[in-house]
Amino acid sequence: MNEIERNRYFLKDSIRKRVDFSRTPQSMGVEAPPFEKPWDPDSERLNLPVRDWAELIDANIVTCIRNRRSRRSYLDTPLGLDELSFLLWATQGIRIIAGDTAFRNVPSAGCRHTFETYLAVFNVEGLDTGLYRYIPSTHQLMVEYRDESLPQRIIEATFNQRFTGNSAVTFIWTTVPYRMEWRYGLAAHRVILMDAGHVCQNLYLACEAIGAGTCAVGAYDQEYLDEVLGVDGVDEFAIYLAPVGKI
Amino acid sequence: MNEIERNRYFLKDSIRKRVDFSRTPQSMGVEAPPFEKPWDPDSERLNLPVRDWAELIDANIVTCIRNRRSRRSYLDTPLGLDELSFLLWATQGIRIIAGDTAFRNVPSAGCRHTFETYLAVFNVEGLDTGLYRYIPSTHQLMVEYRDESLPQRIIEATFNQRFTGNSAVTFIWTTVPYRMEWRYGLAAHRVILMDAGHVCQNLYLACEAIGAGTCAVGAYDQEYLDEVLGVDGVDEFAIYLAPVGKI
Repeated sequence: MNEIERNRYFLKDSIRKRVDFSRTPQSMGVEAPPFEKPWDPDSERLNLPVRDWAELIDANIVTCIRNRRSRRSYLDTPLGLDELSFLLWATQGIRIIAGDTAFRNVPSAGCRHTFETYLAVFNVEGLDTGLYRYIPSTHQLMVEYRDESLPQRIIEATFNQRFTGNSAVTFIWTTVPYRMEWRYGLAAHRVILMDAGHVCQNLYLACEAIGAGTCAVGAYDQEYLDEVLGVDGVDEFAIYLAPVGKI
Repeated sequence: MNEIERNRYFLKDSIRKRVDFSRTPQSMGVEAPPFEKPWDPDSERLNLPVRDWAELIDANIVTCIRNRRSRRSYLDTPLGLDELSFLLWATQGIRIIAGDTAFRNVPSAGCRHTFETYLAVFNVEGLDTGLYRYIPSTHQLMVEYRDESLPQRIIEATFNQRFTGNSAVTFIWTTVPYRMEWRYGLAAHRVILMDAGHVCQNLYLACEAIGAGTCAVGAYDQEYLDEVLGVDGVDEFAIYLAPVGKI
């Protein structure tokens, strides 16, 4: 196979026929990996507002679908903490935890949910500029670090797509692929990418519902972005970005 | 690299640094591929109803996100042709055509939109059981073939996941990867899978808005399904399925 053929092969589900599902870690009795990245209970965390979003927000899904655009310029108005909380709820919020499994507001192949959500915060009410991580189980934000130069670093990490640093907040999803491999082995990977699309589409529509906008970014400097996030690039690495701001 | 490492590599955007974007077909002046699969003007086609969906349907996006579930059992009630038309509009409907480019109701990397939508129709008002293809440019359905045994063939093609043949209609998306390769070369492929997630998430939410449900299916017999669809498995092949029915 040449490289184009090899890449096309990856898009297919042919590999499934080669996977011995009786030999995956799950089938071999290996304990399930945690559904979210472990975090230090002594870390600095902020509670996100919990609201009845259906009471507060009333936007017709048809209008959200119809009005959605790739939005790359944003107002200077800060994003509210309520609004950020809603967007996190819509994209990775947990409904219920049952043993090893967390059911979220987005679907995931086999309910494996391999993503972590990092936020490069630039202009959100009440938050310092810096990198945060969403903790779905407690609906909190963990402070990774404060850094006034973060907008410039995110712009560099996206090959000078300036809107990634001119947003109110840029969502950066990483994947922890073992969560999916544990169940599906070599058949794990294509569905991880599809899952990322599911998550990001909810972000697009949820943004439209609150007078905000986004534009997914799939082109980035993998190694530099992983460094900015402080992830190892092997067991966890960046997979997709989406800058968000008021419009 | 072992196979897990190779698959993980595919999830990353590292490959972008190796692509010479001055040598992609687009940069070399090769004509853009058509934005939809060519079709025979003498083929049997049906007009889908065109409505002001925002007038007809009023469902809060928050409720749609909150109520979405993996829905694998469906009522015997047929899906209306209006409803099917709405779901096609929400997932692949074209807003405007500008030269080689069609802007749709879903986003796509570089607006390349590599998908074709096939429908395995089992229980839709006014339609015979059989395989159809959506023609976005005219908002029509093209009859691929009528076949009373199609439900059983789709169930076989999904390794006996019976709900894929017990639905009112099963959406089956193929990809034509060259549409993305034309612009991005070897950096084309991961975003195709993410695009599929974007499309399918709109289907989930649009279903919730009309009292229907779906459950994405990423596990299928690639070679057999491609045969059922009548696609070559090289330049076009199946990538994702989603059975839909009333709930």
